[in-house]
Amino acid sequence: MVSVAIIGGGNVAFHLFNAFKNAKSVNVTQLNSRKEFDLKSIDIAIIAVSDDAIAEVSKKIDNKNLLVVHTSGSVSMNSLENNGRKGVLYPLQSFSKEKKVNFNEVPFCLEAKKEDDLELLEQLAATIGKKIYRINSSQRQRLHVAAVFVNNFVNHLYKIGNDICKEHNVPFEVLAPLIKETASKIEELQPKDAQTGPARRNDKKTIKNHLELLNKEQQKIYKILTKSIQNGY
Amino acid sequence: MVSVAIIGGGNVAFHLFNAFKNAKSVNVTQLNSRKEFDLKSIDIAIIAVSDDAIAEVSKKIDNKNLLVVHTSGSVSMNSLENNGRKGVLYPLQSFSKEKKVNFNEVPFCLEAKKEDDLELLEQLAATIGKKIYRINSSQRQRLHVAAVFVNNFVNHLYKIGNDICKEHNVPFEVLAPLIKETASKIEELQPKDAQTGPARRNDKKTIKNHLELLNKEQQKIYKILTKSIQNGY
Repeated sequence: MVSVAIIGGGNVAFHLFNAFKNAKSVNVTQLNSRKEFDLKSIDIAIIAVSDDAIAEVSKKIDNKNLLVVHTSGSVSMNSLENNGRKGVLYPLQSFSKEKKVNFNEVPFCLEAKKEDDLELLEQLAATIGKKIYRINSSQRQRLHVAAVFVNNFVNHLYKIGNDICKEHNVPFEVLAPLIKETASKIEELQPKDAQTGPARRNDKKTIKNHLELLNKEQQKIYKILTKSIQNGY
Repeated sequence: MVSVAIIGGGNVAFHLFNAFKNAKSVNVTQLNSRKEFDLKSIDIAIIAVSDDAIAEVSKKIDNKNLLVVHTSGSVSMNSLENNGRKGVLYPLQSFSKEKKVNFNEVPFCLEAKKEDDLELLEQLAATIGKKIYRINSSQRQRLHVAAVFVNNFVNHLYKIGNDICKEHNVPFEVLAPLIKETASKIEELQPKDAQTGPARRNDKKTIKNHLELLNKEQQKIYKILTKSIQNGY
C-alpha cells in the first residue's frame, strides 16, 4: 500500500485524486496547498498547483523520507525546494473539471533523481494509467512546447475555422469529419507526409482567392503558415 | 437506375468510382478527361479533375440533357462551361489513394441551378453517403478556406510538434492522446471555450521560456498564434 497526498485544488489535483481513490493499492488524501499540512504517514506527495507556486509549496515540506513530485510540464525537477527526494509526475493531457478523464489514455511523463524513486513512480502511475514514459526535465520542457502547438494552437485554428463558418451560415459540423481524419491520419503517416492542400501544391491561384476571403488577422496567420509549409519548416 | 460518368483519374475520381460501383441503384463508368468521351446514355457527369481543368473539360460536353457537376471546394458552379444543367458535388475530405474512404463519414456539399437537380444530387449522394448538405458557391468557398485552417494548417502544427520531439528524442506518440482529445473536445465545446494554455492564461513567464526553446521559424508562428489567441481573433 502506497500513501499518497495530493496537494492542490485545481483540475489536475481533482482528477488525480478521483483516479487514485479508485486504485486498489493506493491510499490517497487531498490537501489544501494554502494551509499547513501534515505529511507524517505519507510516502509520496504530489504537488499539483500552479507553476509559480511549486517552489513555495515544496519548501514547506521538511520530511526527508518523503518523495515529493510536481505535475507540471514546464517546471524543472530542481525547482522543487524540499530537502529530500524529488521527482516529476506529469500527466500530459488537457484537463477541464467538467470532462471525465480516462487515465488509461493519458501519458505519464516521469522523472526522479534516483532510479528507485523512478521505479516507485512507475508503479504508482501504473495503478491508474497505461502509457508511462521516462522523460527528463529538458525533454519535458520541449514536450510542453510541442503540446502548445498540437493542442492550444490547433484549437485556435479550429476557432478560426468556426468563425469563418459562422459568418457565412455554414454549420461547423460539416468540418468535423475532416478534423477527425486529420488527427487520425498521423497515426499512420508522418505529419510531413500527410500534408496536402494549396500551400503544399504551391497553388497560387487558390491561395490568392483564399486571402481575399479572410480578414486581416486571418490573412496574417494564413500567410505565415502557408510560407512555413512551402519552406518545409 | 442512375447512370453516372466520372471524368478524371485523380484521388477523388478513384474513390468516388469505387464507392458508386458498390451502390445498388447506380451505374458508373470512369472516363479519361484528356480523351474524347461519349456521354450518350449518361444522366450525371461528375468532373473530378484539378480546379484549373474544370472549365475546359466541361466545355467538351455538348449534351443539354445531362447534369454536369464538379467536385471542387474552391471553384464556383458557374465555372462549368457546358451549355445545360449544372451543379456541384463536393466531398469535403482529404483523400489519399492509399487510404480507404468511408463515405458514410464524408460530408457531401451539394449545389445545383435547379431544385430538381439538387434533389437528384441528394439522391445520388445518399447511395454512398449519409452527411448531405446544401451549400452554395459562396459558402463552399468559405468552407474550403476554413478546411485549409483545420486540415492543412493543423497538420503543419502537428509537423512542428513532431520536429520538436524528434530533435530531443521524445517519441511523438506521447502527444497522440492530446491530439485526439483536442480534436474530440470540440464536439462538445465551442473551440473558443475549449481553449487552455499559456496564451489564454497570459502566462508571460511560460511564453518566454517556450520562445527560448524554439528556432526562428517556430518562434514566428508561436508569437503570431499566441497574440491571436490573446486578442480573441
